[in-house]
Amino acid sequence: MPEKYDLICIGSGPAGQRGAVQAAKLGKRVAVIERRRVVGGVCVDTGTIPSKTFREAVLHYCGAAVRQGRSLRREERPTAEQLLARVAELVKRQGEVVEDQLARNDVALFRGRAFFRDAHTVAVETGDDTVELRGDNILIAVGTRPAPPPNVGESDCVFTSDGILRLTALPRSIAIVGAGVIGIEYATMFACLGVNVTLIDGRPQPLEFVDREIVGELMHQMRGRNVTFRTSEVVDRIDVDEKLPSGRVSILTASGKRVVTDMVLFSVGRVGATDGLELGAAGLDVDERGRLHVDEQYRTKIAHVFAAGDVIGFPALAATSAEQGRLAACHAFGVPAGPMGTNFPVGIYSIPEISMVGATEHELTAAKTPYEFGLARYREIARGQILGDAEGLLKMLFHRDDRRLLGVHAIGTGATELIHIGQAVVTLGGKLDYFVQTVFNYPTLAECYKVAALDAFNKLSR
Amino acid sequence: MPEKYDLICIGSGPAGQRGAVQAAKLGKRVAVIERRRVVGGVCVDTGTIPSKTFREAVLHYCGAAVRQGRSLRREERPTAEQLLARVAELVKRQGEVVEDQLARNDVALFRGRAFFRDAHTVAVETGDDTVELRGDNILIAVGTRPAPPPNVGESDCVFTSDGILRLTALPRSIAIVGAGVIGIEYATMFACLGVNVTLIDGRPQPLEFVDREIVGELMHQMRGRNVTFRTSEVVDRIDVDEKLPSGRVSILTASGKRVVTDMVLFSVGRVGATDGLELGAAGLDVDERGRLHVDEQYRTKIAHVFAAGDVIGFPALAATSAEQGRLAACHAFGVPAGPMGTNFPVGIYSIPEISMVGATEHELTAAKTPYEFGLARYREIARGQILGDAEGLLKMLFHRDDRRLLGVHAIGTGATELIHIGQAVVTLGGKLDYFVQTVFNYPTLAECYKVAALDAFNKLSR
Repeated sequence: MPEKYDLICIGSGPAGQRGAVQAAKLGKRVAVIERRRVVGGVCVDTGTIPSKTFREAVLHYCGAAVRQGRSLRREERPTAEQLLARVAELVKRQGEVVEDQLARNDVALFRGRAFFRDAHTVAVETGDDTVELRGDNILIAVGTRPAPPPNVGESDCVFTSDGILRLTALPRSIAIVGAGVIGIEYATMFACLGVNVTLIDGRPQPLEFVDREIVGELMHQMRGRNVTFRTSEVVDRIDVDEKLPSGRVSILTASGKRVVTDMVLFSVGRVGATDGLELGAAGLDVDERGRLHVDEQYRTKIAHVFAAGDVIGFPALAATSAEQGRLAACHAFGVPAGPMGTNFPVGIYSIPEISMVGATEHELTAAKTPYEFGLARYREIARGQILGDAEGLLKMLFHRDDRRLLGVHAIGTGATELIHIGQAVVTLGGKLDYFVQTVFNYPTLAECYKVAALDAFNKLSR
Repeated sequence: MPEKYDLICIGSGPAGQRGAVQAAKLGKRVAVIERRRVVGGVCVDTGTIPSKTFREAVLHYCGAAVRQGRSLRREERPTAEQLLARVAELVKRQGEVVEDQLARNDVALFRGRAFFRDAHTVAVETGDDTVELRGDNILIAVGTRPAPPPNVGESDCVFTSDGILRLTALPRSIAIVGAGVIGIEYATMFACLGVNVTLIDGRPQPLEFVDREIVGELMHQMRGRNVTFRTSEVVDRIDVDEKLPSGRVSILTASGKRVVTDMVLFSVGRVGATDGLELGAAGLDVDERGRLHVDEQYRTKIAHVFAAGDVIGFPALAATSAEQGRLAACHAFGVPAGPMGTNFPVGIYSIPEISMVGATEHELTAAKTPYEFGLARYREIARGQILGDAEGLLKMLFHRDDRRLLGVHAIGTGATELIHIGQAVVTLGGKLDYFVQTVFNYPTLAECYKVAALDAFNKLSR
């Protein structure tokens, strides 16, 4: 007889984990299934946490050079081993934090590959054995995996973002195919490490959803660190050839360009990690990118089977996935719960980091919404000077008529933290006056809000 | 004939500077007088900026040891010269920023000692010469200076906080008399540098206006770094004696205790820097601490003479002083301007840093306001783990009935930045729901708000 649960979560990433804890807090019997060696899903094992920790390790070694706008000296350059040791330690610790949290909430944890027997029954292959669980509700939170490179296998010189953490030595050069968030994040980290980076993307501009000025500033800084942008370029093929004179991999683009490099990071999209789930047995199917479709309660077409997190697509951020998991668990047990706030922030952990909330200038222009902007540069404020971050900036957009805050866009140290002040004001309907009248701690980066608001105020007073 | 101005600001610290710029933006003719070598007042020259930069320099050298909770190794210990070089550079640069800003706004800058001839005339001794300025309005923003030690002169082993930046070598031990904000800040910095610190204060507990749990946490961490607290102890006398076996200074307390130490930092209060202004000539007088009294428009008893900043007393923070200066300038020219927001944050730049906004638990208890609290520890969240800050915490206080956010109290990395999220929600009347429904960037310290809010939510749901 299969063990019975009120909720079975397949996957222990942010969505599965938060869904499980929410259900447990409601007094439900909950199981979580994880097939990876580390609890916490892709987020902890190969995704968010490793890339953010890799970034911290890079900043630890290169922060001074980055701030002083100079190249890394030979003796400052860390080895791949040094960088990844810190990552491994944190992945392990963060996995333990998640495991502890599940244990504290009496959530049963099963390790192994999960697959459906029918719409209520999930089997788990745990090494030699297969156990069966029966769930009144099931939450699919399996996340995504990187799309594989087109015509070449993964190797020690062709990686996806999941594989980059198996790096054994820093390359002299790297080509990154795909200038989405992950591609951009790794491009800036390698550039700070003094690696020659070529970024290739089929689209005309990276990060199309981000404020143009912020992207321009990022690209300017990246070019200063020897990043070459090859936009509007489609990769035709990737060949590994140990005999190349100046690298080991050759990339041919549709326009006939050739990029020869030590290493390739392939980061063109991710697909739902749904293969192997045998979704057909539950009466479910996925789209061409392996994703599941859900309604506003995160239900699939089988009403008691929910899906949340990256596997359902946009926005596919750890933070939004966690909230989706929580809301799915609430809906499963008839507990009234939100829709998710629409003003979620976007954080891009490049060097420098980028964050935004609310509308962009190009969105407001397209919607013919009259707005005015205010700008503050980190170098104008004391905290920016103390940090030595001269390039950071924060931009605020206000409605010209009622002076509501419509959006905030930031690049520079602490941008992903700083954005939440703007998020609170946007969400609570605050206006320009709030920032003009408010006193901020001195010296802090938060003072940018005051400076930018006064800039907008002066423009609107003319 | 004296030169005529719409506004004369005496002092170029945050209050004088922001007042001058505000008046200039209103199209007024403005002069600023500064008697120090650096424009920007005490804030830039010997106060806020140097102490905050000193702190950054300490963290630069000691950050890793501090995070790992271990003592500083001998070879990691910086020299006073190394620490102060960075401070000097930033003081110079920040002074230039202020000077630039005044110049950009066509504010005339006079350097020298200012004193009143009459209620409209201010003389400036500029070396050999004395010039006279006539102002329709005058803003006194001269700030404060440290109260001098009681029975002993300043020397190379007895300092006030203004003198600490003349340090030529790090002592092995230091006694800090006065556990106010400045005393606490320097105590934590010296403790991180491996200096033996004894903190002496007549009051029973340091930082009485701060949340008790936060102060407890700070004291716990300070004790871990060999800080000895001597509270409820009044200093009777300080004697310098080069022949002492284990130090050069001997402190005798009223209870008969004796503290022998290499160096003494005397930080018992500050007095208004009003002597020499010849306020009598303008018909003004000061209280026993050299301070001026003003009405809610920042007017002294002479209606066209304003005072703002530390010289008028509480809260005497750079940020609030700047806002007072701005508001005084608005009132001088009949421009409607708010009262200053009451929800200003307090930032204490100790290591770890502390920040708060709104009410404390002991205030709410005294007022018999029913509240519930929610707590998040940095070690529970991914960003805290990545930073390696296991000790940080954030506490939120909500009204039990309507669930309004009443106060936020934080200690740890970035606390002075983090507090502004809570400040926006307190000021805009947001409630517990805001934090439960809001998605925060992952991984950020801002997630503490979500974790603490869910903690309070669970308590309130019981």
